[in-house]
Amino acid sequence: MIRTVDLNSDLGESFGAYTIGQDEAVLEYVSSANIACGYHAGDHNVIRKTVKLAAAKGVGLGAHPGLPDRLGFGRRYMSVDPEDVFNMVVYQVGAVKAFAELEGECLQHVKPHGALFNMAGKDPVIARAIAEAVAAVDKHLILFGLAGSCLIEAGRTAGLRVANEVFADRTYQPDGTLTPRTDPQALIHDPDEAVERVIHMVTEGKVTAVDGTDVDLQADTVCVHGDEPQALAFVQRLAQRLQEQGIRIQRVGSE
Amino acid sequence: MIRTVDLNSDLGESFGAYTIGQDEAVLEYVSSANIACGYHAGDHNVIRKTVKLAAAKGVGLGAHPGLPDRLGFGRRYMSVDPEDVFNMVVYQVGAVKAFAELEGECLQHVKPHGALFNMAGKDPVIARAIAEAVAAVDKHLILFGLAGSCLIEAGRTAGLRVANEVFADRTYQPDGTLTPRTDPQALIHDPDEAVERVIHMVTEGKVTAVDGTDVDLQADTVCVHGDEPQALAFVQRLAQRLQEQGIRIQRVGSE
Amino acid sequence: MIRTVDLNSDLGESFGAYTIGQDEAVLEYVSSANIACGYHAGDHNVIRKTVKLAAAKGVGLGAHPGLPDRLGFGRRYMSVDPEDVFNMVVYQVGAVKAFAELEGECLQHVKPHGALFNMAGKDPVIARAIAEAVAAVDKHLILFGLAGSCLIEAGRTAGLRVANEVFADRTYQPDGTLTPRTDPQALIHDPDEAVERVIHMVTEGKVTAVDGTDVDLQADTVCVHGDEPQALAFVQRLAQRLQEQGIRIQRVGSE
Amino acid sequence: MIRTVDLNSDLGESFGAYTIGQDEAVLEYVSSANIACGYHAGDHNVIRKTVKLAAAKGVGLGAHPGLPDRLGFGRRYMSVDPEDVFNMVVYQVGAVKAFAELEGECLQHVKPHGALFNMAGKDPVIARAIAEAVAAVDKHLILFGLAGSCLIEAGRTAGLRVANEVFADRTYQPDGTLTPRTDPQALIHDPDEAVERVIHMVTEGKVTAVDGTDVDLQADTVCVHGDEPQALAFVQRLAQRLQEQGIRIQRVGSE
Repeated sequence: MIRTVDLNSDLGESFGAYTIGQDEAVLEYVSSANIACGYHAGDHNVIRKTVKLAAAKGVGLGAHPGLPDRLGFGRRYMSVDPEDVFNMVVYQVGAVKAFAELEGECLQHVKPHGALFNMAGKDPVIARAIAEAVAAVDKHLILFGLAGSCLIEAGRTAGLRVANEVFADRTYQPDGTLTPRTDPQALIHDPDEAVERVIHMVTEGKVTAVDGTDVDLQADTVCVHGDEPQALAFVQRLAQRLQEQGIRIQRVGSE
Repeated sequence: MIRTVDLNSDLGESFGAYTIGQDEAVLEYVSSANIACGYHAGDHNVIRKTVKLAAAKGVGLGAHPGLPDRLGFGRRYMSVDPEDVFNMVVYQVGAVKAFAELEGECLQHVKPHGALFNMAGKDPVIARAIAEAVAAVDKHLILFGLAGSCLIEAGRTAGLRVANEVFADRTYQPDGTLTPRTDPQALIHDPDEAVERVIHMVTEGKVTAVDGTDVDLQADTVCVHGDEPQALAFVQRLAQRLQEQGIRIQRVGSE
Repeated sequence: MIRTVDLNSDLGESFGAYTIGQDEAVLEYVSSANIACGYHAGDHNVIRKTVKLAAAKGVGLGAHPGLPDRLGFGRRYMSVDPEDVFNMVVYQVGAVKAFAELEGECLQHVKPHGALFNMAGKDPVIARAIAEAVAAVDKHLILFGLAGSCLIEAGRTAGLRVANEVFADRTYQPDGTLTPRTDPQALIHDPDEAVERVIHMVTEGKVTAVDGTDVDLQADTVCVHGDEPQALAFVQRLAQRLQEQGIRIQRVGSE
Repeated sequence: MIRTVDLNSDLGESFGAYTIGQDEAVLEYVSSANIACGYHAGDHNVIRKTVKLAAAKGVGLGAHPGLPDRLGFGRRYMSVDPEDVFNMVVYQVGAVKAFAELEGECLQHVKPHGALFNMAGKDPVIARAIAEAVAAVDKHLILFGLAGSCLIEAGRTAGLRVANEVFADRTYQPDGTLTPRTDPQALIHDPDEAVERVIHMVTEGKVTAVDGTDVDLQADTVCVHGDEPQALAFVQRLAQRLQEQGIRIQRVGSE
């Protein structure tokens, strides 16, 4: 049996005259692209370009819907009702799906962004609104959610394929949730340590929590970043170590 | 042979707490709805509601993409390059299409809005960008354009079905173009006169230009408004007169 | 001693082609205008027009800054840090102040809008950010806040004159706070009752809480609405009853 | 007599999570900062930070109002009527002025941005709307405009001090206007040549036009850029060469 894992990255976050990220470089290493949809980041021109680039590299195309808050990059919590969330997801996924089809590709997945991702991981009502919106647009879309979170559950309930996402640079609590960013222990700063944690998650299905205990954690897809200078070096190293372990980087939708 | 004509109206232009138009009332009379897509007007919640309402009445669903200028309601000319236009149309049509499909409906048509509509009627490069974007999203979409304009031509070149649109409340030049709004003769203020002009256009395929000559003009669809108090009375009267003439109001896409 | 009270209303909430409110009519009755600043509602053209109208009627000019959320009309809670709040208030107040000065008027007051108003009434950190921003723009501005709330306190600490605001159509808890809108008892639906409650608040400095007890409540300014059909009738009636009681409607800044 | 010249740069163009420019570095060399006002670029947090930085370096603070087109960075022509322009300038200048005063500084100047700058240089109606808006906000503001253009004239007519702006990296026509960017000769690509042209303009009041003739051109302020990698090297070199020529870099408002 060949072990595989998906690497995903948030891409297409540039906007008008503003550039963020090293999309072309990151696309060399990841297998799934979460493409900003024009609410928290991105615009119709950036979506087009990013979809083309990702499609050309055979990377799985995903919509990355966010809250309508460009100033806050979709990272700020905002009180939104489930119907509003349903509709904003349909809108954004529909828009990106059109660009994917334009290139003769199917949209592979949907991963909510930022505050919407966080809300969806904890609030079953928001999680359900997102999952139902994704299913309403296309039953074949794969829903990415925090590993073991209620978004994963909502996706299954909605009849969707799901992908449990893990983070290379974040620590976990004994209950399998992410350590909040407000906690000084939240982030893994040593890239080598981060890489080895991913290997552990992918090969063993376990993560070492902050209290030293090993916690079960399904790792279908690993989120890697592309917006900081050292990010690329990290992705390269992670890709190399995965290869050494005989783990193939492969998009979720290809199975 | 039963004569038919399509009546279309710009709908779904409300936004957040702001309401424009009498959409429910207008939907009783028209056969095609041009639904704002969230750029110049509308938002994801309004689109959802409008698509539902229109679908429930059997009205043909159309996307009404506009320039990204909410403050100017998409009515201001803006210099945009063709690639930008192509992408903004794909984005907006894709978003509304997702809402149509959610209701088990096909999107019937696309009609550009405001300044984009005007530019598309005169500038073959913009017209082509729009037509190609529409065709790229879905070859079965019908493109609405000013009767006899270069948008109609671009639609045909792109392999799309087209619908020549006429205006009940506007006068025409001897060459079949609309009298510019800056001209005092641009508007028909008498609703009875406007109604009879439509009857003339639909039954004879001709419009009386400002110089009194009769000009050929194909009238596949008539644009009626719903955002002013007297607009509804006009639509009612037009519907009644069409019925009296044995002309059936029927959505373009039903043929 | 002549008793006086200020009546304030949220105005200038129209935006581009969208109209909300009956500003001209409401301005006949109120003494202070809270003018939307272009973040949650309003735009530079609407601000200009509203400032002119209000100034012509001798109504006190106020800035009504809100969260950057036009889609949600600034009514949605959004996580914002105090520095961000400070800056968004400076920006919005500065913009409206320029329009006031253009008409040869001083800006009289600032009242935060919607979710920002609610947060400022409960969260001392947000309250302080707002109060300090207002004081930083102009020490002579009067800060409007929920009567007895921490925004009032923050205003005093920042060295500002403050105005305790009461609501005609809302019920109060025994501790002087507003009954949350989620409570079925939150709103006073009978306009006559609402008017008499205001008279009671203004003349006695007391409000009857939902449990029947009378609670001390300083009523410097009463918020009245102008965006619903019956709103105007209510304002007219309130103005008449205040006059009958010998209470003069007078802008806060005139004392 | 000591010769002086002002160097100005467009700053504060970052927005939310998006960074543009090397503001801190550029502020070491320029004497006047044109600060984006939140319409085409910038936001309330960026304005605050930029005003603080510029004030700390003793750089003259200017508002850089643009068209309401963040997607197009204010570079796209948009049909706007003069009243709209007047109001958008008052709004933006008022907002930035509040931040300047917060730091105990006076706003020094206003320079319109992008398409608004270009329109103002050619269209006397737009030029007048801008000049009158600036004068209405504060009679002491200095208006920056293309050297010899109708914006300079409109500024004088409105009773404002004006500063004729020249461009180091652009060529000029025999009539003193800029060579349009569509012309292959529009840009000076050799930084040394650009520097020497500025020296010529400042010391002689003349520029060599594309046809080789010397044209009179008053150079009160020179626009330098800070958003590209090589931009900083150019500014450094220009500053050094000006010093060698005994020309002091001094903000316009200091005289």
